[in-house]
Amino acid sequence: MNDLETYLEATAGTVDMALDRYFGDVFGELYKAGAHLLLAGGKRLRPAVLLLAAETVRPGSSDDLMSAALALEMTHTFTLVHDDIMDGDATRRGVPTVHTKWDMPTAILAGDVLYAKAFEYLTHALAEDRARVKAVAMLARTCAEICEGQHLDMTFEKAGDAVEAADYIEMAAKKTGALYAASAGIGAILAGGNAMQVSALYQYGMNAGIAFQIQDDLIDLLAPPEKSGKDRGSDLREGKQTLVAIIAREQGLDLAKYRRPLSPAEVDAAIAELEEAGVIAEVRKIAAEKVANARQSLKVLPDSKQRRYLDELVEFFVTRSF
Amino acid sequence: MNDLETYLEATAGTVDMALDRYFGDVFGELYKAGAHLLLAGGKRLRPAVLLLAAETVRPGSSDDLMSAALALEMTHTFTLVHDDIMDGDATRRGVPTVHTKWDMPTAILAGDVLYAKAFEYLTHALAEDRARVKAVAMLARTCAEICEGQHLDMTFEKAGDAVEAADYIEMAAKKTGALYAASAGIGAILAGGNAMQVSALYQYGMNAGIAFQIQDDLIDLLAPPEKSGKDRGSDLREGKQTLVAIIAREQGLDLAKYRRPLSPAEVDAAIAELEEAGVIAEVRKIAAEKVANARQSLKVLPDSKQRRYLDELVEFFVTRSF
Repeated sequence: MNDLETYLEATAGTVDMALDRYFGDVFGELYKAGAHLLLAGGKRLRPAVLLLAAETVRPGSSDDLMSAALALEMTHTFTLVHDDIMDGDATRRGVPTVHTKWDMPTAILAGDVLYAKAFEYLTHALAEDRARVKAVAMLARTCAEICEGQHLDMTFEKAGDAVEAADYIEMAAKKTGALYAASAGIGAILAGGNAMQVSALYQYGMNAGIAFQIQDDLIDLLAPPEKSGKDRGSDLREGKQTLVAIIAREQGLDLAKYRRPLSPAEVDAAIAELEEAGVIAEVRKIAAEKVANARQSLKVLPDSKQRRYLDELVEFFVTRSF
Repeated sequence: MNDLETYLEATAGTVDMALDRYFGDVFGELYKAGAHLLLAGGKRLRPAVLLLAAETVRPGSSDDLMSAALALEMTHTFTLVHDDIMDGDATRRGVPTVHTKWDMPTAILAGDVLYAKAFEYLTHALAEDRARVKAVAMLARTCAEICEGQHLDMTFEKAGDAVEAADYIEMAAKKTGALYAASAGIGAILAGGNAMQVSALYQYGMNAGIAFQIQDDLIDLLAPPEKSGKDRGSDLREGKQTLVAIIAREQGLDLAKYRRPLSPAEVDAAIAELEEAGVIAEVRKIAAEKVANARQSLKVLPDSKQRRYLDELVEFFVTRSF
């Protein structure tokens, strides 16, 4: 493991322990349902981004901000719980989704409880009052944006072939970019960063999050299921409006023929066709531009180990296969 | 109209205008769905309680707190949107519910957007930073409690005859009391109230809210539909665990026979039986105790027109028939 991997693993361990302390032994079905996905693991990348951003602005500040880091993970988890209901998904992180294990009403409420807890934990951050108010306002705006992103994603199903690359980028920015942006931005705010630092880290997170979402699409198509934990080519079979599908369409490729049950060999054939036409390369290029933007944003911050971690982290976002 | 009624009407008008300004011309189906119930009227009692509580603590302070008052109405509306999904209700405030007019996924997201906007608007209140952080923390805790209350209410359906008066009061405290408590408490906090004032107004709102919920049950049973806008006796027909049903059971009455389609004459017969056994009087007595508690809480505050309004308001809560 390199230093970043060691850092991410240690941070995930700390986050896991803290979540287990607060949610491991809750009373009643509502809180058990709320804790279910929160305690089911996950890479804990948003807490890591928040803590790294804070350290970049003021060394040592992250010690005071664990409750804010947990707040971001709770926010992420609340959106997963509600998204799973909307998307009708049965499993997540290797466990049954909340509405599957309990029921739809309990899942709505479990998400709503995590939503509340996110704001409560954010107010517990050890930071200036003014900074905490700003952090709450940023998280609130971000939650609205995530909803907009999820709604946009749902409209893509009806819009079909009318969805363009710019629509996809807007969706990815809101659905995934916004919460990474808020993670970095809130870390910077709570650490006492100035407006330029907050803005730079917000932009870092936004670009990193978009790249992350694009990579998710590539993983669905390219990664071996034993690595990704996902069913390879599911987006292709479902005719989902991923960036791959949109760029393919722009280049005159018709992916409609793959919208059916596919054997592994057929998925391989689709990949070959997409690579031949330069679609995969074009998608990777767009992701790489977002990575470059994210890395550029970091340059206004003083050099530090944590800044280097953020720099490496966004590279990891587009090289990971899980 | 008496002075309180004039005040409430003027405040509701101001709230309506502000909501219309912010949500009357929103773009896109998600925000239209979010605005739908928010703009469908309502008594706007929580904003009124927040503004009156603030004035009681510091005369003139309410002018700075309209965005906080709107935040409480948004919170209330988000819970209605989500509750309507869970309860499968088709109409609310005389209009189709959000999941009926749109669909379930859009309604979940519309509620989530209002939830976010509530916190965003709360941070916009013109008040000390420390007070705003405390207000956010109080709203967050309250949102979790409302979820607990709704969840408890749902479990009552399964628990049936095992539900006792104390369970009902806990449910009413969380589902309805907590948000009135937060309305008054947040008004006091943002106006710069001391801990004693905040606590007194919080308790005022809690007791007032419980009385409000009990009165809702009585309205369902007793109020002529043309006044209440509700289908008289629906709780009786559905065998709902209201305080009326629980007290009836405690007094040996079997209401199970009314759990079927009922003619108006049969509802009248049920009411007569409940009155005969002293059930209605006992329920009114419990509500009156909550009203007395609420009024007692107000006594630590300096006398003012607004304190008298709060005093009269809680009386209105248990005399209203709509």
